[in-house]
Amino acid sequence: MIDDEKFLRGDVPMTKQEIRILTLAKARLKLDSVVADVGAGTGSISIEAARLAPHGKIFAIERKLEAVELIRRNVEKFSVSNVEIICAAAPNGLETLPTLDAAIVGGSGGKLREILDALYGKLKVGGRLVINAITLQTTATALEHCRACGWSYDAFQVQITRLERVGRYDMSRALNPVTIVTVEKI
Amino acid sequence: MIDDEKFLRGDVPMTKQEIRILTLAKARLKLDSVVADVGAGTGSISIEAARLAPHGKIFAIERKLEAVELIRRNVEKFSVSNVEIICAAAPNGLETLPTLDAAIVGGSGGKLREILDALYGKLKVGGRLVINAITLQTTATALEHCRACGWSYDAFQVQITRLERVGRYDMSRALNPVTIVTVEKI
Amino acid sequence: MIDDEKFLRGDVPMTKQEIRILTLAKARLKLDSVVADVGAGTGSISIEAARLAPHGKIFAIERKLEAVELIRRNVEKFSVSNVEIICAAAPNGLETLPTLDAAIVGGSGGKLREILDALYGKLKVGGRLVINAITLQTTATALEHCRACGWSYDAFQVQITRLERVGRYDMSRALNPVTIVTVEKI
Amino acid sequence: MIDDEKFLRGDVPMTKQEIRILTLAKARLKLDSVVADVGAGTGSISIEAARLAPHGKIFAIERKLEAVELIRRNVEKFSVSNVEIICAAAPNGLETLPTLDAAIVGGSGGKLREILDALYGKLKVGGRLVINAITLQTTATALEHCRACGWSYDAFQVQITRLERVGRYDMSRALNPVTIVTVEKI
Repeated sequence: MIDDEKFLRGDVPMTKQEIRILTLAKARLKLDSVVADVGAGTGSISIEAARLAPHGKIFAIERKLEAVELIRRNVEKFSVSNVEIICAAAPNGLETLPTLDAAIVGGSGGKLREILDALYGKLKVGGRLVINAITLQTTATALEHCRACGWSYDAFQVQITRLERVGRYDMSRALNPVTIVTVEKI
Repeated sequence: MIDDEKFLRGDVPMTKQEIRILTLAKARLKLDSVVADVGAGTGSISIEAARLAPHGKIFAIERKLEAVELIRRNVEKFSVSNVEIICAAAPNGLETLPTLDAAIVGGSGGKLREILDALYGKLKVGGRLVINAITLQTTATALEHCRACGWSYDAFQVQITRLERVGRYDMSRALNPVTIVTVEKI
Repeated sequence: MIDDEKFLRGDVPMTKQEIRILTLAKARLKLDSVVADVGAGTGSISIEAARLAPHGKIFAIERKLEAVELIRRNVEKFSVSNVEIICAAAPNGLETLPTLDAAIVGGSGGKLREILDALYGKLKVGGRLVINAITLQTTATALEHCRACGWSYDAFQVQITRLERVGRYDMSRALNPVTIVTVEKI
Repeated sequence: MIDDEKFLRGDVPMTKQEIRILTLAKARLKLDSVVADVGAGTGSISIEAARLAPHGKIFAIERKLEAVELIRRNVEKFSVSNVEIICAAAPNGLETLPTLDAAIVGGSGGKLREILDALYGKLKVGGRLVINAITLQTTATALEHCRACGWSYDAFQVQITRLERVGRYDMSRALNPVTIVTVEKI
C-alpha cells in the first residue's frame, strides 16, 4: 500500500490509505481483474488497484478535468501501465466498458442509482461493487437501491483516528468516517 | 448550552459543545458549586460552568497569557460574574483554592499527576474530578494514577461526527475523539 | 445523572447515560418545561427530564405494554411525580398534548414523519425537538423531512467507547452509535 | 478475505474481518513472506496470512490449549499447509523462529515488551511488526516501547460499525475499536 503523502493531490479530495485498503479488500481483486473506478478523484484507488491486478485493467472514470490531470500525473508517477482514464460524467462512459470483475464508486455526482445500475449490469456473476459514501444521502440511497433491486449487500462504517506524534505525545486526529457498501452479484 | 461559534477563540484550542456537555454533566454541578477549571483555554468550560452554578464560583486556571486574555474577553462577552481567572502553571496556583465541589482538567502542561493530587486534595467527599484527554499519554497517565491512588473512576472515549449540511447532502465531519475520565472522591 | 444500572430494564432497550446527557442538553430543558418523550422505552429519558424540570411535566408515550409497565416501575423507583404515561402508538395520543417546550423521539414505530409533524405542531416557538436515531433509515428520514419542511436543524453522530476495568487493563467496549438530530422551531 | 462466521471460534475472541484486512495490509505480506502471529487465538490472522503468502510460512504462537486446538481445526478447515502451530507462552518459543518478514501481535499475556524485543530481533531490515491493541495499557506500552527503542512507527485506532439488516432497517452495531501500531525495521 502506498502512503497518502506520496500521491499528488492538488485540491482534490483523496481516499485515505486505511479506506483504500478496506475498499480494495472488499472488491476482492485478483491478478487479472478488470475494474471500474467511478469518481476516481486523484486516482489513488485506481493506482492501488492497478498494482494489485497487474495482469488486469483499471478504468478510471472522472468528470472533472483538474482531477483527470491529477490521475494522469499519478499514473505516471507510480509507473502503472494498466490504467485507462475516461473523462466522463458517469453513467456516461460506462456503456462502453467491458465485463467487470469489480467496480468501485467513490463519487457519483448525484447519479448514484443510474451508476449502480450500469455497473451492476457490467459485473460478471460473483463480481463485486464497492461504494464509498461520505454523506448520509449517498449511504441511504445506496442501501435503498440495493434493497429495491434485491441485491445481496453488506455495509459498515469505518472511523479511523490516527495517533499523530507531537513531541512526547500521540494526539488523536480523527479522519472523517466513510461507509463502505459492498454488493456481490449472485 | 452555548454554540461553539459564539465563543471568542483566537488560535487557542476549544472544547467542543458536545464534549462540554458531557464533561459538565459528569461533574454534576449544582447551583452553588465551587469549581476549578485547569487548563481553561478559551474559558468555554468555565463560562458554561458559571451559568450552571450561578450561586457558586469558578476558578479558571490557565498559564498562557494569550488564553488568559481570551478567557477575560469571553467572561465579559457572556456577562458571567462568578469566574475568577488565575494565571498560573498548575499545580502552581491550586494551593490557594478553597474546598471544591468539582474540578475539570482540560490541560496539564506535563504535570498531570501533581495537578490531580492537588485537586483531589481540595475536593470535598462526593466531589468529582473530570479529565478531558486528547492524547494517549494523558489518558494512560490519568488511569494509571487513579489506579495507583486507589481512586474510584470511570472512563469513556467520545467520538462526535457532525453531519454538516452541504447543499442537498449531509457530510460526515469527524471531531477529534476525547477520553473523559471521571473520579469521584468517596 | 442516573447511572444506567439503576434503571429497571427487562428486555427493553435503554438509551445509555452519555446519550441521555447529550439528548437532554440539546432539548435545553428549563425548570418548568413541558416535554413529550415519544417511544419512551424504559422511561430513562422521561425520568431524567422529570428531575431536570421539577416544576414542569413530562408525557411519556409508549405503545408496548411491557415497556409501559417498566416506565411505571421506574417512575416509582425514582419517586418522580411529574411524569404522565400514555400508552399509545404515536402519532396517536399526541393530539391531546398541551403546548410543548421540548419533545424527544426515541422510537417511532415506522411513523416518524407523522410523529415529527404532530410534535412540531405542538412545540412553542423556540421549542426543540430532539430525535435519537439508531438506524440509517431513521436518520435519513428525519433529515429529509426536516429539509422538506424547511425546519432549522443540526445533527451529529455520537460513538461512545467505554473503558471497562478488567484486572489491570482498561478494555475498549463500544456502545452502538446514535445520531442525534435537533430541530428548533423558529 | 474470509467471512467471520466461516471460522470455528468456540469461546476464543477473534479478530474481526475488517481488522484482519487492515492488519495484514499494514504487514505488507508478499507471496513468500515468513510471518509470526503471536497470540494467534482462533488462527484467523494466521490462516488469512497463509493464503496471502502461499509460498511463505506462518508461525502461529498461542499459549492456550483450547485456542491451539481451534487453530488446528481452522487450519484443517481452510486447507492451508503453511501454518506451523507453536504452543508456548511468548516470548517463549520465539527464540527458535527463523528470520521474519513480518510479525503480528494479537495477544501478549502481559509480556508485550519482551515479545516486541524478541520479534524485532528476528525481523529482517524492512520487515514490519504490527500490533493489535484492545486495551489502553497495551496501546500505551507499545507506543512507549517504540519510542524508548527509537523504532519507526505509526498508529491508528479503527472503529467499525456494521449496518445490520433488521427487517426494513439497517441498524448500527459497533464493534469494539482496535488500535493498530505498525513498526518498520529500518
